Amino acid sequence: DIVGAIEDALKGETRLRLPGAAKGPLSGRHVVVTSGPTHEAIDPVRYIANRSSGKQGHAIAAAAVAAGARVTLISGPVTLPDPAGCDVVRVESARDMFAAVARVLPADIFIGAAAVADWRVEAAADKIKKRQGAAAPTFSLVENPDILATVSRASNRPRLVVGFAAETRDVIAHAKEKLLRKDCDLIIANDVSEAAGVFGGDANEAHLVSRSGVESWPRMSKEAVAAQLIARLADILDRSEAAE
Amino acid sequence: DIVGAIEDALKGETRLRLPGAAKGPLSGRHVVVTSGPTHEAIDPVRYIANRSSGKQGHAIAAAAVAAGARVTLISGPVTLPDPAGCDVVRVESARDMFAAVARVLPADIFIGAAAVADWRVEAAADKIKKRQGAAAPTFSLVENPDILATVSRASNRPRLVVGFAAETRDVIAHAKEKLLRKDCDLIIANDVSEAAGVFGGDANEAHLVSRSGVESWPRMSKEAVAAQLIARLADILDRSEAAE
Repeated sequence: DIVGAIEDALKGETRLRLPGAAKGPLSGRHVVVTSGPTHEAIDPVRYIANRSSGKQGHAIAAAAVAAGARVTLISGPVTLPDPAGCDVVRVESARDMFAAVARVLPADIFIGAAAVADWRVEAAADKIKKRQGAAAPTFSLVENPDILATVSRASNRPRLVVGFAAETRDVIAHAKEKLLRKDCDLIIANDVSEAAGVFGGDANEAHLVSRSGVESWPRMSKEAVAAQLIARLADILDRSEAAE
Repeated sequence: DIVGAIEDALKGETRLRLPGAAKGPLSGRHVVVTSGPTHEAIDPVRYIANRSSGKQGHAIAAAAVAAGARVTLISGPVTLPDPAGCDVVRVESARDMFAAVARVLPADIFIGAAAVADWRVEAAADKIKKRQGAAAPTFSLVENPDILATVSRASNRPRLVVGFAAETRDVIAHAKEKLLRKDCDLIIANDVSEAAGVFGGDANEAHLVSRSGVESWPRMSKEAVAAQLIARLADILDRSEAAE
């Protein structure tokens, strides 16, 4: 099972390699990665965004391609070029991203690296006008669909579902809680407080949180985090299948 | 006076050229241009933004440089390169932009092409967490400082103050009302409804709204709008000084 395979992989036991993996550790696998922010329209000109640059998600997609996988990258609005060798689906809102993920499943691995907006506002059809002397408007938020939890509980659930937790405090505690709440297999947790400089920056200090425990990686480039994560996931997938 | 000079300029009467203008119609002038969106933080990772690309404001700054002016460009977060020959001040929020404008005045011409957020939220110090089963949060908005009105009423008011009105309906009516409310000299009005494709696009269909009336320009590139606007402003400035 996946839990046992994750435990074994984290213990660093000998890695089993399946015959199909000859052309790369993820050869023959379909990997779906989400990346970047989502934009939630307030009206035709305003929107709610977040500081995700998409660098980590795009690096993961590129690393999965390098490992031989067929990769579908579902990206929110970013200024990054499309990584070579992926199918790229560009979306704007959390609901767009949710629909795109549903469309491209099934997959062997789902990696939700996008910073999906938890909430949207009910968008106005016309630009909201400032009225002289009137009180400022109040936005009531509506919860967006939960992509990670939905994928984790889908009838065609990918064998390995990986989420991200971007936190400004109590990083690991929040990640553990998120893992259980979303029913996913792994959470990559990182500190996105301004001091850490992760959002928009080129480096990441990641913690790999599973049901078995936490593995904290040293600060390294987002490309290095991506390569290490993809190697781990390929290993876990191979172990879980070998154990069947 | 400025009103008379605008009237004359729009009537297309013979243009007077001052001796100092030999090196370019805005030689010896200081022009301050704001451009791009502002980002208003909700918490350390989320913010409210708008769809302004900064293309029109940056093109105006470049056109003012080409006309011989000393140009200060105050830009919100954009992905455009800095135009050559400008002093560029990069800002994030409306309050940052307001402070930067105050710092770089006095000027002969102020052109407020930025899409400044009317409102901000009182930003949270920590990332707002989604709580299981809890109602979605409500954001109460706070009005931002009004840069255009403040510049128009400043003791060191630039001789020519130009605003923009991005509207999705009743474009000219809203622009006229804005001109009076903000005490500025000209409003460049444009239709930013999705159908018009102005926000983020490369073309603009501008209406030059003054106390004397409205001049509607045909759809043209943002660079052409910038060049035509700068030529007009140089003309108005020369006329208003010649009339003194």
